[in-house]
Amino acid sequence: MDIQIIMGSKSDTPISEKAEKILKNFDVEYEVTVASAHRAPDVVKDLVEKSKAKVFIGIAGLSAALPGVIASHTTKPVIGVPVSGKINLDSILSIIQMPPGIPVAAVGLDRGDNAALLALEILSLTNKKIQEQLVQYRRELREKSLGKK
Amino acid sequence: MDIQIIMGSKSDTPISEKAEKILKNFDVEYEVTVASAHRAPDVVKDLVEKSKAKVFIGIAGLSAALPGVIASHTTKPVIGVPVSGKINLDSILSIIQMPPGIPVAAVGLDRGDNAALLALEILSLTNKKIQEQLVQYRRELREKSLGKK
Amino acid sequence: MDIQIIMGSKSDTPISEKAEKILKNFDVEYEVTVASAHRAPDVVKDLVEKSKAKVFIGIAGLSAALPGVIASHTTKPVIGVPVSGKINLDSILSIIQMPPGIPVAAVGLDRGDNAALLALEILSLTNKKIQEQLVQYRRELREKSLGKK
Amino acid sequence: MDIQIIMGSKSDTPISEKAEKILKNFDVEYEVTVASAHRAPDVVKDLVEKSKAKVFIGIAGLSAALPGVIASHTTKPVIGVPVSGKINLDSILSIIQMPPGIPVAAVGLDRGDNAALLALEILSLTNKKIQEQLVQYRRELREKSLGKK
Amino acid sequence: MDIQIIMGSKSDTPISEKAEKILKNFDVEYEVTVASAHRAPDVVKDLVEKSKAKVFIGIAGLSAALPGVIASHTTKPVIGVPVSGKINLDSILSIIQMPPGIPVAAVGLDRGDNAALLALEILSLTNKKIQEQLVQYRRELREKSLGKK
Amino acid sequence: MDIQIIMGSKSDTPISEKAEKILKNFDVEYEVTVASAHRAPDVVKDLVEKSKAKVFIGIAGLSAALPGVIASHTTKPVIGVPVSGKINLDSILSIIQMPPGIPVAAVGLDRGDNAALLALEILSLTNKKIQEQLVQYRRELREKSLGKK
Amino acid sequence: MDIQIIMGSKSDTPISEKAEKILKNFDVEYEVTVASAHRAPDVVKDLVEKSKAKVFIGIAGLSAALPGVIASHTTKPVIGVPVSGKINLDSILSIIQMPPGIPVAAVGLDRGDNAALLALEILSLTNKKIQEQLVQYRRELREKSLGKK
Amino acid sequence: MDIQIIMGSKSDTPISEKAEKILKNFDVEYEVTVASAHRAPDVVKDLVEKSKAKVFIGIAGLSAALPGVIASHTTKPVIGVPVSGKINLDSILSIIQMPPGIPVAAVGLDRGDNAALLALEILSLTNKKIQEQLVQYRRELREKSLGKK
Repeated sequence: MDIQIIMGSKSDTPISEKAEKILKNFDVEYEVTVASAHRAPDVVKDLVEKSKAKVFIGIAGLSAALPGVIASHTTKPVIGVPVSGKINLDSILSIIQMPPGIPVAAVGLDRGDNAALLALEILSLTNKKIQEQLVQYRRELREKSLGKK
Repeated sequence: MDIQIIMGSKSDTPISEKAEKILKNFDVEYEVTVASAHRAPDVVKDLVEKSKAKVFIGIAGLSAALPGVIASHTTKPVIGVPVSGKINLDSILSIIQMPPGIPVAAVGLDRGDNAALLALEILSLTNKKIQEQLVQYRRELREKSLGKK
Repeated sequence: MDIQIIMGSKSDTPISEKAEKILKNFDVEYEVTVASAHRAPDVVKDLVEKSKAKVFIGIAGLSAALPGVIASHTTKPVIGVPVSGKINLDSILSIIQMPPGIPVAAVGLDRGDNAALLALEILSLTNKKIQEQLVQYRRELREKSLGKK
Repeated sequence: MDIQIIMGSKSDTPISEKAEKILKNFDVEYEVTVASAHRAPDVVKDLVEKSKAKVFIGIAGLSAALPGVIASHTTKPVIGVPVSGKINLDSILSIIQMPPGIPVAAVGLDRGDNAALLALEILSLTNKKIQEQLVQYRRELREKSLGKK
Repeated sequence: MDIQIIMGSKSDTPISEKAEKILKNFDVEYEVTVASAHRAPDVVKDLVEKSKAKVFIGIAGLSAALPGVIASHTTKPVIGVPVSGKINLDSILSIIQMPPGIPVAAVGLDRGDNAALLALEILSLTNKKIQEQLVQYRRELREKSLGKK
Repeated sequence: MDIQIIMGSKSDTPISEKAEKILKNFDVEYEVTVASAHRAPDVVKDLVEKSKAKVFIGIAGLSAALPGVIASHTTKPVIGVPVSGKINLDSILSIIQMPPGIPVAAVGLDRGDNAALLALEILSLTNKKIQEQLVQYRRELREKSLGKK
Repeated sequence: MDIQIIMGSKSDTPISEKAEKILKNFDVEYEVTVASAHRAPDVVKDLVEKSKAKVFIGIAGLSAALPGVIASHTTKPVIGVPVSGKINLDSILSIIQMPPGIPVAAVGLDRGDNAALLALEILSLTNKKIQEQLVQYRRELREKSLGKK
Repeated sequence: MDIQIIMGSKSDTPISEKAEKILKNFDVEYEVTVASAHRAPDVVKDLVEKSKAKVFIGIAGLSAALPGVIASHTTKPVIGVPVSGKINLDSILSIIQMPPGIPVAAVGLDRGDNAALLALEILSLTNKKIQEQLVQYRRELREKSLGKK
């Protein structure tokens, strides 16, 4: 397995689906699980410690502790996706402002898609196929953004 | 033991000292420990699960996951103290915006003193002595605020 | 009576209902009253001073003085629930940034549910029944968050 | 007496002094008192209800309930001065975001001077002398701002 | 004439109507005019300088210069009402953060009602009738807030 | 004259000096005047209406109405420079959030230098000399930023 | 060609249309192109370097690098329009807070209309016709704002 | 070469030094270069396109376009470090709020250290040595945070 996606709540599904929509077009294995850092911390811990995944994606809103909690249990790269709500700065700041020593790679608000692409960029360092797919994706993105496709 | 104070980092000591300065004048037993939610999550978990304390105080800055992580391991009351830094809204929002089901009692920025008083108010519900001491403390606070003392 | 809920305005009812939805399942007596800190300060004062409640919950939006005003009349624990509006940071900061000496236990925006749970956690310190109910509630919350229920 | 200045804490003195520095040059009687809305609510209530002042100025930082609490006890004009601290938006929003029905006239952060001038403008409506002094003050302010004085 | 209401744009009408709804029940003369500080500065200047009004109310959104511009042309009390939009902090801060010497009395976001009440409180200082009406209004507000009316 | 710099207060001098430091090296005529939009609105109006300048630069802090007030009196380009203080978002939002129809060209906080460069870019459209000087300035800036100079 | 409008994404069309609606009534040539600073940086660079336009308008939301990237490739005036979204402060601050040496003229959130007017003001410095049209536009704007048209 | 660090300005050196302080203790090759996205966009482009680095770290303050500009030229992982200043939210939001398709991995304000650790975590996926060093680093961090070292 390559990428383990964990979302803090079932209600974060639209954001994980943005990630899946990207990942489906790439040669990667991934898994999506719901496990709340606050309601099921033992499940998060077990999931992270036993996972064979190379990269983790944590999706969470509000005080959004999930990505940081994942990071506290592993030295593999952890990507954090803040989920929008009534305040927005809450999830953004909770995820990005990690203390020294325990990094989380924060992407933009609701950017499940960019979390997936960042995970793929990481995996591409040792996977020629993904690397080529990413270059191709970027080319198509460029064309599409210019209205040529 | 009555109150377990946990701070995320040695650098939060000035805030825990504000709490201690209050607690020293009351008939309570308390303990102050440094245990980071991100750097030593197992220690936080053990500490919380084995503690005989009735109330927890978690002190943390930045993405300030500590009070929420404490709360994820207990159904005893958890008080969270956001610590000031370059942004301030980061620790405040991280601590106050807990998801439904896992409450944290947030006090003001750097308000170690109010965290101690809130813990005492909770303990006072079944402790006449503390209750009287609190009423006395409030009276003196009032006098002092009016410049009469 | 165990818990006195006061909301600043009739329009805060959806938030107090979140609290009631929790409390109904626990062995507690509670009362919900509307009393504005700005429009009926004498009623708030009387209510707080005469109440037999062990814990107060103040629900208010905008400049949200209610929880602080309740706290100014008692040394019992006061929980404050900021209500959402056009700004949100107004009620959050008004409630959490209490001056030294008069603590309020702030919960998240519109989190009537967490205010109720925090009140229950406080009461559980001397009530075995509530304590067991809380552990059971937490267990079910965990299961439900994992999609097992 | 014309103007009653109340500050929430002794530490707000530099802001009340800005007000006094203005008022000293005008034909008005004023009084400055320290009375905290949270630590001495009864004193604030008594002070406001018994005062012969025509205008109130409330100076407070943090959750800054004072001006609103003054306003809850009178239908005379109440001016609120937010005091700066680690966040600033806390006192500004607490003072300005009053609920419908109970107005507070908020001036800028730490603007004790403008609070005094606003009080004088209000008094000038029925006081020719103050009115002339204000016009003169404005003229000198203009000159000074242009570097002509 | 007692109160001159100026709004920066026709689109601010719902806010001036909140003011009118209050004023209609009191013994005051008022006038509502549209005059933009940025699009018709000469009209604002003329209106203010020639007005017989005792109090001005300026209603404006976005960079909301109107209340400050009114205040620059008079030493009578000027009340500013920030109008909500996509940001909200823009109109609030533009209105409240006046420089030393030129006060504006800021009320809450969209609080045309409180602007009217504040104007009435100012007028009541020399108008017994309005004073009595305000006390009566406050009494009814209190009753209504308590659900007794 | 090419550029008229107006600052709201003598205290904004450090920011206008940043502009002057740039302008001194270019073939332009400029003038720096202190004229507050709130304290001397007639002076601002006269200055703008009589000025032969092609571009205006307004420098102001707090509620920062100056650039907008300048723009209300002319259809020439007006550049606004927000000045830092205790809040910063106040001057930024006051200057940038102009209503439709009356544009102000906002530059960054305390960026007197960029205001000068923007004015020069505008003038360069019909001034070959300035155009060449700007290209040269940019080249040196590039070298310096790369540590080559 | 006089004005080159570049928007970062097809979804910014409503904002560029606000600009076009203004420009259509003036004697100017303009062109609207979609070219993302992040997805097609080479296209932006080519477009800017080869363009005969005198003024550039960059329209972008989120991290909104486009106006700054345009400015990095030219010494002609660049106007930046922040586009609204879930946060708003993101695009505003990204566009306005340019580093020293590379100015961008920021207009208000979604203010494609003001970007067009600012561009016209710049062009009017050497174009009598546009100058007269702007004066006429301003006159009509004034009348319309006063409800006279 | 493994890691290419680019900072937007010489003044960002204290933040890049935090990264270097970490990297020096690991078996990696890295290079630190100053190249501004706005002042030397061609240098950034060349540097990124020709670099053999596996991971990029972009350090920038204010409108902080650098990490996004780096990302626009590569499909390798790009880490962005916002640098503190007078506003802080400017660099944070500019870096984190990237549009869909072009991810940047944002770390906390001034967290050059965490950027280095995140880069190492990425490299560790195919480098056993670094992986072991990271586990060892984390262990020591844990001990140190607990005051045991």
